[in-house]
Amino acid sequence: MAKSSIITFSSDFGTREYYVGAVKGAILTINPDAQIIDASHSIPSHDILGAAFTLAGYAFDYPSKTVHLMIVDPGVGSDRRCLAVETERQYYIAPDNGVLSLIYARERVLRAVSIEARHYIHNEVSPTFHGRDIFGPAAAWMARGINIENLGPAVSDYKRLTLPLTKDLSEQELEGFVLHIDKFGNIITSFSEAEIQKRGGIRDSSRMVVNGKLISSFVRTYSDGNSSEPFALLGSCGYYEIALALRQASQVLDVKRGMKVRLTL
Amino acid sequence: MAKSSIITFSSDFGTREYYVGAVKGAILTINPDAQIIDASHSIPSHDILGAAFTLAGYAFDYPSKTVHLMIVDPGVGSDRRCLAVETERQYYIAPDNGVLSLIYARERVLRAVSIEARHYIHNEVSPTFHGRDIFGPAAAWMARGINIENLGPAVSDYKRLTLPLTKDLSEQELEGFVLHIDKFGNIITSFSEAEIQKRGGIRDSSRMVVNGKLISSFVRTYSDGNSSEPFALLGSCGYYEIALALRQASQVLDVKRGMKVRLTL
Amino acid sequence: MAKSSIITFSSDFGTREYYVGAVKGAILTINPDAQIIDASHSIPSHDILGAAFTLAGYAFDYPSKTVHLMIVDPGVGSDRRCLAVETERQYYIAPDNGVLSLIYARERVLRAVSIEARHYIHNEVSPTFHGRDIFGPAAAWMARGINIENLGPAVSDYKRLTLPLTKDLSEQELEGFVLHIDKFGNIITSFSEAEIQKRGGIRDSSRMVVNGKLISSFVRTYSDGNSSEPFALLGSCGYYEIALALRQASQVLDVKRGMKVRLTL
Repeated sequence: MAKSSIITFSSDFGTREYYVGAVKGAILTINPDAQIIDASHSIPSHDILGAAFTLAGYAFDYPSKTVHLMIVDPGVGSDRRCLAVETERQYYIAPDNGVLSLIYARERVLRAVSIEARHYIHNEVSPTFHGRDIFGPAAAWMARGINIENLGPAVSDYKRLTLPLTKDLSEQELEGFVLHIDKFGNIITSFSEAEIQKRGGIRDSSRMVVNGKLISSFVRTYSDGNSSEPFALLGSCGYYEIALALRQASQVLDVKRGMKVRLTL
Repeated sequence: MAKSSIITFSSDFGTREYYVGAVKGAILTINPDAQIIDASHSIPSHDILGAAFTLAGYAFDYPSKTVHLMIVDPGVGSDRRCLAVETERQYYIAPDNGVLSLIYARERVLRAVSIEARHYIHNEVSPTFHGRDIFGPAAAWMARGINIENLGPAVSDYKRLTLPLTKDLSEQELEGFVLHIDKFGNIITSFSEAEIQKRGGIRDSSRMVVNGKLISSFVRTYSDGNSSEPFALLGSCGYYEIALALRQASQVLDVKRGMKVRLTL
Repeated sequence: MAKSSIITFSSDFGTREYYVGAVKGAILTINPDAQIIDASHSIPSHDILGAAFTLAGYAFDYPSKTVHLMIVDPGVGSDRRCLAVETERQYYIAPDNGVLSLIYARERVLRAVSIEARHYIHNEVSPTFHGRDIFGPAAAWMARGINIENLGPAVSDYKRLTLPLTKDLSEQELEGFVLHIDKFGNIITSFSEAEIQKRGGIRDSSRMVVNGKLISSFVRTYSDGNSSEPFALLGSCGYYEIALALRQASQVLDVKRGMKVRLTL
């Protein structure tokens, strides 16, 4: 069994608290050779969908056997389970709240367990900080190369977010939603490259409508558009997005996450 | 003398400036094997109490011989000393401004020195950036395993913050203060688990008052409470806190750091 | 050819997105031994001058052969080139948009190439995310010790920002500009130590004017000034700055980046 010492770490802990430092300490105490790689700690508080989107945005870029630790855990202390998941390529440690939904959709799960083995978690588990006392230690042990089954009993009914699916309104008309707004103001829609290809792809006459605004120009890159007329393009994580060159499209179009988007092919 | 190459690093430098990068460069120039672990760089500018609280929140979770570098240094360039402190378990590098107060309260100090030995600091010390020119280099050398006494003369009168102590108003009534508001809006009070245990612990009838609001429910975890009625619980760093499920209790109760809190046992 | 595994990484990606995590994954997939050092990911979106200033603030503090990766890339997808630059001491990987201008001014460039060799970049290059698909991989390979010439053809006309230069208004009067406002509110001017030395240095009678406000006190360190009267001092990166003790001078003086500053020696 090959092992990697890389542990990526994301959370909604922010960068102003002791939480990130404490989880890292818990990891290094168990596994001083771990290479802890900060991905994002500024996921909005309790934002499970945002966390799922962020994790799926970077996880597949890592070497095989990487351990991905994602702690966005509004249910800490409740009876939601603490998960360790092995896919064909990598490992995931996260609360069982749907935060791994986009991983399940793209990687085949080999095994999933509920982290319960007392040997691999902190002696005294704080009911309010499983990141430090359960998730961090489990990630540290996985990166040391233990077998995932040691962590606890198998789980098959892990939670998946029920995302609004793309609806076919007519043969050429689809309805999706705004999946994410990024820090540049780019509006990432739920229309994936695969979905659109399956329906014949974008044509010259294709257009999108969001919040009553029409986007009729599909380009290849941000530099092909301008800053006054919003345009659409295929983004780097495989979803179509709506953007403006060097401006916040989300502000200009007054678009928020979750809004409906209509695509006419 | 065992050594660890781990250096944790916190500061009020923010994540937008060159300061964090410069300190890391100074460390790696002296000690390319150092594992620099970012804890928090978003401590509010010049906030010594906030820094003390943050550091104490993560320091004890690290392996022994870890070097903890904390640079919140409003007095840079004044005659405040630059400290290196060895406790029974770990090392601390910080300005002598009280930022280590909560460490002194929980770990026994073996030796403390004023960092002055020219061999272990930068050739030219900028009067405005001791982080890069003194603290970073000293941390790098400590992680290389030098004896702390090499850094400079012993110091015994290091500065401690004089925190408002818990006052016993009557046999069952205590007065404390708000020690910290975290990014989730949780209100961390100065009442420690040890203090409350000594006085007999929380009972069914216990209650807290802050900013004129009564909190009469003590629960075990955030998930045991709801989002409309504030509740109290023992937080992960050993202090009682006031929270709301999935909402910012500090905003709802209009509570700021430093406010008085009354606890009736 | 000596090699270092250190890769510093700055960007305008923010800390809330998947972009930082994805670039790190791309690096570690090629070079699992890379030590990725986060410098700043909060450079304002598309702010090339801010990025240039930040990079120059930390780059020279690193060991020789360090690879500095700087991704502030408003022109991603356009025909701007992707640069790899070798100076006498270090390596730089960045878009050819002027972000290395302050490096060119202080280190001698030995070789610069346009990153084009398909072997060293991602198989499929997203037109919107060269950080992950070109810059990250190139940095990973440089840190593995490849010869820079392998990355692509030589470039000699790399872009430099045309910064407003210091103007000599009279023998003793200079005009410069505000180069940067830092998170403490310190106002960093474009007057460098070298420039001022060449003109005879600061005297007792020297003074600065910015936004109509007179600064007549030059001190050595922040602690030598007070919080009511703005003062000037030589900052840690070699430029004169205007500050207030423990207050945001930029707010108090209502000063923004780019404003003119007049210095009378």
